[in-house]
Amino acid sequence: MRVCGIDCGTQITGYGVVECRDGAREMRLVSIASGGICPPRKSPFPERLAFIYSELSALFVRYSPDVVAVEEVFHSVNARSAIRLGHARGVALLAAATAGLTIAEYAPLTIKSAVTGYGLAAKQQVQFMVTRLLSLPVAPEPADAADALAIAICHIHHAQTLSIEEVRAV
Amino acid sequence: MRVCGIDCGTQITGYGVVECRDGAREMRLVSIASGGICPPRKSPFPERLAFIYSELSALFVRYSPDVVAVEEVFHSVNARSAIRLGHARGVALLAAATAGLTIAEYAPLTIKSAVTGYGLAAKQQVQFMVTRLLSLPVAPEPADAADALAIAICHIHHAQTLSIEEVRAV
Repeated sequence: MRVCGIDCGTQITGYGVVECRDGAREMRLVSIASGGICPPRKSPFPERLAFIYSELSALFVRYSPDVVAVEEVFHSVNARSAIRLGHARGVALLAAATAGLTIAEYAPLTIKSAVTGYGLAAKQQVQFMVTRLLSLPVAPEPADAADALAIAICHIHHAQTLSIEEVRAV
Repeated sequence: MRVCGIDCGTQITGYGVVECRDGAREMRLVSIASGGICPPRKSPFPERLAFIYSELSALFVRYSPDVVAVEEVFHSVNARSAIRLGHARGVALLAAATAGLTIAEYAPLTIKSAVTGYGLAAKQQVQFMVTRLLSLPVAPEPADAADALAIAICHIHHAQTLSIEEVRAV
């Protein structure tokens, strides 16, 4: 299974593609690609949205993920930040829906718990654990890419738990 | 000049295409089309966004507006509503940017003032004045279509004022 995690934002949209492979003893998580989509800062807002949309669409073609995983809407930010984040998130969901991909959403607490075991972990802890879980030589940059990889890992963990539960239920 | 006003929303996205024509004595405002885009309520949220995007893109092809006018972000709603509205608005701005159209934004107060002369006018007053200004036999339905027509009229008024000011400045 190949998952593309997306950490939406109007300034930087982080992405991280993770594949789950069968290892000798257990499943291995492999980082396929990660980075940040940074629309030109001085361009008008609608053009920045178009930039995010076309970059994400190109990523989906290039890496053919089975699933796109995103963070659930974040409520504690103010209305102004929320509406701007909503614009970027709408464009990301649209890109995934247009590409015919399955979309999974996870709460920020669930994502942090999945990679660090603690729902209120700091950004640095998430970055550290993502680096370890994916056996990366250095921490992914920008931080938004690490967050996106964490979202992808979170989905893989949840999908495995679900499939184990399905087996038990039989 | 032909303007497409859009009143963004995740349940109903209103649209209204207005053309400004030279009359015998003064400019005439003509309603070309108006209505509401209503994505299937039970379909998943990303698919509803895809529905709004494809309907708006088709409208832009069909009516070839010169400008797309939208309401500026609305701050007094709560973060949850704001983020959902942001998704729809992001998709609308993306559709306009992808179609290569000029985008104009107006504050709710400016739009209401442009059609009723009063920035805090009620929804019914806006609907009544839009019907009169466009010499429509009945009020446009849904109310979101009337709001979208009001946004288009607001842009035409502002564009005229701007061109008069430009003439004066010469």
